[in-house]
Amino acid sequence: MKVLALDTSNRPLSIAVLEDANILATTTTTTHQKHAQYLLPIINDLMVDCGFQPADLDRIVVAYGPGSYTGIRIATATAKVLAFTLGIDLVGVSSLQTLALNVTTEGQLVNPMFDARNQNLFTGLYRIKNGVPEVVIPDQHVELSDWLAQLAKYQDESIVGLADANHFTNDLPNTFTMIDNLDNLPQAANLGLYGQHLTPVQDIDAFVPNYLRLTKAEADWQKLHPEEDSNSYVEKI
Amino acid sequence: MKVLALDTSNRPLSIAVLEDANILATTTTTTHQKHAQYLLPIINDLMVDCGFQPADLDRIVVAYGPGSYTGIRIATATAKVLAFTLGIDLVGVSSLQTLALNVTTEGQLVNPMFDARNQNLFTGLYRIKNGVPEVVIPDQHVELSDWLAQLAKYQDESIVGLADANHFTNDLPNTFTMIDNLDNLPQAANLGLYGQHLTPVQDIDAFVPNYLRLTKAEADWQKLHPEEDSNSYVEKI
Repeated sequence: MKVLALDTSNRPLSIAVLEDANILATTTTTTHQKHAQYLLPIINDLMVDCGFQPADLDRIVVAYGPGSYTGIRIATATAKVLAFTLGIDLVGVSSLQTLALNVTTEGQLVNPMFDARNQNLFTGLYRIKNGVPEVVIPDQHVELSDWLAQLAKYQDESIVGLADANHFTNDLPNTFTMIDNLDNLPQAANLGLYGQHLTPVQDIDAFVPNYLRLTKAEADWQKLHPEEDSNSYVEKI
Repeated sequence: MKVLALDTSNRPLSIAVLEDANILATTTTTTHQKHAQYLLPIINDLMVDCGFQPADLDRIVVAYGPGSYTGIRIATATAKVLAFTLGIDLVGVSSLQTLALNVTTEGQLVNPMFDARNQNLFTGLYRIKNGVPEVVIPDQHVELSDWLAQLAKYQDESIVGLADANHFTNDLPNTFTMIDNLDNLPQAANLGLYGQHLTPVQDIDAFVPNYLRLTKAEADWQKLHPEEDSNSYVEKI
């Protein structure tokens, strides 16, 4: 199976091309925030490097959130268009779980974290089982203090923390080990290895980013329209 | 410190550009064996991606063997020329230790292995200490059976095996866990993180690949000239 995997959920942009368990080519860059500008050229470079045509692909695996709104929209939209156009399978994986894939120590608790500003974070707790991260506490948008309260019951275990920013690490309990090597970057190669066997695949038309919180505009609109369905930001006519 | 790290020791080609602890851009590809053809263009692409000129670099870190003769010669020669031309520091890191950098589990024994054909391997045993692999049994060119005998004293410990080929894994003791994800590929990003603080730096002129065995031509010559100094393959005149 020929797989294209992509993650532009935050500042890092990571792309990989795989054939079954073989990682053929992968690039990860953190130098810019113009993912919409760089994503397709880098995909093209890697495909050429592998000698693949788009029609050779069998599956797209995409990290579909949470993360930067713009970032997850770019990756998700690109993945949808490619999968639809090529008539191939599409699989979405949590962007937090994608980061947790960097850890392979069996039984280890892993806590990927994305800074969501104002002492909030996108985070979830995972445990490595059979080599891959399984959900222990689901992905959520949460205040740091609330998250630490949820972690309290795991205070007797070591936790590996993964974050590409360190804004909140001073507040973490001392059972945390923060990773500061390549493991704190999402790696599309691991995403492709993990996602290539996942089932079921997505309904391509219905597939949307997993934002996990409202945009500020949506939240403001809800405040002004408390009587409306919370899913009806776009005004009904 | 701006760092360029490269590893072409075997089939994978991995290049990274870093600034201090920040991995700016990295590419790893396993699609070809023409490292001499691809190395400089990929270095150029990554440098452009980072907005760096060659003169901005402060240090080159290179995986200098053991491995494919041609592979380690390409990386070492490229690193030497760049460091000499730019007048910057050059650091060499074992290509086996570079692979072991993928594991960060404190205290874990790690056994990187490169297939050296005919039931021989290049290998060494490392233990993760303070997050980086320290030598337990030095890198060597060895028959598999001899290597397993050397490992016997560690039979009560788990060992993580890292190899990009699996030719000999059927013969390994059951305390081995073979890694089959991205961790079995060398990652120049980790090489750059590790090598940027290493001292002392190399004497650039004297720096040579760490072959760890004679070429067949050298070995044949020695058989025919048993009376000669074993380092004098090139006939003295």
